[in-house]
Amino acid sequence: MSRKVLVWNEYIDDRRAGPAKDCYPNGIHETIARLLRSYLPGTVVETATLQDENSGITDEALASANVLIWWSHVAHEQIPDTVVDLVQDHVLRGMGIILLHSSAESKIFKRLMGTTCSFRWRESGDRELVWVTDPSHPIAAGIPCVIELAADETYSEYFDIPKPEAVVFISSFAGGEVFRSGCTFQCGEGKVFFFSPGHESYPIYHNDMISKVIGNAVVWADSGRPRGPRRMFVHSPVGWYELQSTQAEVL
Amino acid sequence: MSRKVLVWNEYIDDRRAGPAKDCYPNGIHETIARLLRSYLPGTVVETATLQDENSGITDEALASANVLIWWSHVAHEQIPDTVVDLVQDHVLRGMGIILLHSSAESKIFKRLMGTTCSFRWRESGDRELVWVTDPSHPIAAGIPCVIELAADETYSEYFDIPKPEAVVFISSFAGGEVFRSGCTFQCGEGKVFFFSPGHESYPIYHNDMISKVIGNAVVWADSGRPRGPRRMFVHSPVGWYELQSTQAEVL
Amino acid sequence: MSRKVLVWNEYIDDRRAGPAKDCYPNGIHETIARLLRSYLPGTVVETATLQDENSGITDEALASANVLIWWSHVAHEQIPDTVVDLVQDHVLRGMGIILLHSSAESKIFKRLMGTTCSFRWRESGDRELVWVTDPSHPIAAGIPCVIELAADETYSEYFDIPKPEAVVFISSFAGGEVFRSGCTFQCGEGKVFFFSPGHESYPIYHNDMISKVIGNAVVWADSGRPRGPRRMFVHSPVGWYELQSTQAEVL
Amino acid sequence: MSRKVLVWNEYIDDRRAGPAKDCYPNGIHETIARLLRSYLPGTVVETATLQDENSGITDEALASANVLIWWSHVAHEQIPDTVVDLVQDHVLRGMGIILLHSSAESKIFKRLMGTTCSFRWRESGDRELVWVTDPSHPIAAGIPCVIELAADETYSEYFDIPKPEAVVFISSFAGGEVFRSGCTFQCGEGKVFFFSPGHESYPIYHNDMISKVIGNAVVWADSGRPRGPRRMFVHSPVGWYELQSTQAEVL
Repeated sequence: MSRKVLVWNEYIDDRRAGPAKDCYPNGIHETIARLLRSYLPGTVVETATLQDENSGITDEALASANVLIWWSHVAHEQIPDTVVDLVQDHVLRGMGIILLHSSAESKIFKRLMGTTCSFRWRESGDRELVWVTDPSHPIAAGIPCVIELAADETYSEYFDIPKPEAVVFISSFAGGEVFRSGCTFQCGEGKVFFFSPGHESYPIYHNDMISKVIGNAVVWADSGRPRGPRRMFVHSPVGWYELQSTQAEVL
Repeated sequence: MSRKVLVWNEYIDDRRAGPAKDCYPNGIHETIARLLRSYLPGTVVETATLQDENSGITDEALASANVLIWWSHVAHEQIPDTVVDLVQDHVLRGMGIILLHSSAESKIFKRLMGTTCSFRWRESGDRELVWVTDPSHPIAAGIPCVIELAADETYSEYFDIPKPEAVVFISSFAGGEVFRSGCTFQCGEGKVFFFSPGHESYPIYHNDMISKVIGNAVVWADSGRPRGPRRMFVHSPVGWYELQSTQAEVL
Repeated sequence: MSRKVLVWNEYIDDRRAGPAKDCYPNGIHETIARLLRSYLPGTVVETATLQDENSGITDEALASANVLIWWSHVAHEQIPDTVVDLVQDHVLRGMGIILLHSSAESKIFKRLMGTTCSFRWRESGDRELVWVTDPSHPIAAGIPCVIELAADETYSEYFDIPKPEAVVFISSFAGGEVFRSGCTFQCGEGKVFFFSPGHESYPIYHNDMISKVIGNAVVWADSGRPRGPRRMFVHSPVGWYELQSTQAEVL
Repeated sequence: MSRKVLVWNEYIDDRRAGPAKDCYPNGIHETIARLLRSYLPGTVVETATLQDENSGITDEALASANVLIWWSHVAHEQIPDTVVDLVQDHVLRGMGIILLHSSAESKIFKRLMGTTCSFRWRESGDRELVWVTDPSHPIAAGIPCVIELAADETYSEYFDIPKPEAVVFISSFAGGEVFRSGCTFQCGEGKVFFFSPGHESYPIYHNDMISKVIGNAVVWADSGRPRGPRRMFVHSPVGWYELQSTQAEVL
């Protein structure tokens, strides 16, 4: 059974004339979809945007996705809470999710983290250096010790997130700021990767190493297991000592 | 400035005739308040219940509390989302919170964790052994290697929470089940402690060692700092190199 | 390139007449090797024992091993420190290692952990229940919520280890004890799994589910990457701004 | 009972004519001792150096110390392994330890971490910005969001340590490098803090904010408890069900 990835983009900045559209003429989602098809040949990649029906997110689409990639910036508040509920439910049951750049401020990231996810930012075009701080992590496979990006938006600590399971990347910016730019989390049965590089005005998703990070992250975030059921508080009628061990499977 | 603790109880099981009222004639909140006043003489302890105005939770009450203790069981859904928002906001800004027993299923715990917090349970009255698994943790100070409780409700793994910062206690039950019964988390600037012993039908909060755990947890959860402001995404007009270092304080 | 696993056993208890030899007539290493060959068909499995030259551990043997499995009990002190140095070096450079049962007391485990790794134990033959506490972890794939072992040695907290990256299993014993029985760690570039079930007097490594755990652990512990060089303190002659980005690879 | 801190310095660079002696005429240990006496009035501060008998480290001196501060650079290999054993033993039993700057390469840090602790470095005199990445941590109390140091040695990732419990500070350097400059670990019952700022050629320990960090770290690292016994593998003659609960204390 092949892996399926759904790339979701709010598709606003990159649809109107300007630097974002110059970098991503068909939208950020199409650039990311293309890089994944190239990097992960056996993977089925689909795209969706906020302009699609149901904001582009349905239970069916998520049910068949192993990994969801999310890019949002100016329209976080346009996502209905029912969509956030749905995405959270699939993540907790095992769907991987990769949140890019300003998706740090998205409702779904804040829902999964339980914190404000706030940070400092500056539209600077400063040079960003993305340092590997967990070289044995699968997401860093094949990545050199540092990725240089000629220009990106500056993000800076303090970044109000729970302690990540792994901090795979830490960035510095020409202004001297630092940011935990690649962080993993486990939320229920789902793997979560936040990766900050990728301001829409710069061609960052065209960078080979950034592409490789995202491709690695897809492989990592895909649990390779069937989606589990919704977890419920389960009443256990009897104790272990009264059970046959053959019943263990169904507990 | 003295520490203030607010003990909140839904006060339903322990208000009507039955084993809970037999154990806690004035309500679980009054028993916990009394043990804290005894264990932490300088601490101001107040109580509130679901029956109070605004479900017993106001911005003023939280603003003056260093630590909130929460006990809920059958009325989780009666807590309005606006109250959950308010408690979360204070936790993220530095208020400590201690969640007891079935508060594992409360809206506020699920909000802070981002997961379902589900688990298996059995109203068994089985013996519970609460083992210390992090003896150097402040919450375990003065606690022997194991606390024996003659009877409690059985809680069992898998407990669907993010990886705790510390697992201070793991319980076993006579039926053979295990449960991570004392877990700490950091949520924004607030410290969070979940402690599972304490079914309402057994006099568990009258146990000296359980009292000591709760007292220790209050001391631990109190950050000792003034409540911070609401964290916002902060636009930084200029980079560090353009700032005077004296401005660092206000960033 | 196929995966290679080296199964090392001190081979003392299970070589002389008695219950250990009854359970493992050809030694614990042969039973584990056989289960791995069956569970992981493409994997090359070799064995070594303390009775072999150089205590069965050479730089060459480790260099070609993706994962080392270690079982020791009464002869921890017979392992020369130079062998411990060698194993540690390979782990830090990316070799996976799986430490079974009383290997908790081995020199190499204590070296990697930096702590005493001490715990309480009782040769009881009590029933052990091994509960899954991290169901989405690859090591728990296909494992039911609990594995019942009719008899094992009792291990009990407090277990003096650093906080594990993941606690995949927690066991309870008929005497009421609990133990973090399946713990993962990252040591340099190497993955480490400690798994406590497996007293030599009981046929635990013949249990299908225990076999599956060990097989899963081998797959998990194999980084799939070439062994890195010995890490050194590296003098950087010039700063990033003076480097060409093409040099990043070699930093 | 008052807190006692032992400040240990190899005292080599700062004893011979040159920039280190210019910055620290009486040695780095005396500067740190003075700042602690000023910042923590009730604390007893003693000093020792490599030139003292037994390398300045005795069982008696450690037994009475709540926290040990360690500064070493060129003489790591002159510390006998028996001294490393002794310090490790006290840390595992509850003594706090604070390792400064190039002590990252010390035998005791590598022993406690189990890894190489290697990193990249450059004697650059570049500006260092020390960013707070865990503002609610006690070590960051009263520290602004960033500390500017006009000049320090550049340290750079990858820093080969186990995942810290908390990354309190991350530094950037003018050359673009990043480094996890303030990291906490729990080793047995002892708290460990590594803090990288402090090259001997610059007056960094005269900086008020750096002093405050070290003072905070001493308070944090002091467990406030009597030193525990050496942890041993403990044979439990009988199971919990055969014990009186009053025996739990002695287990």
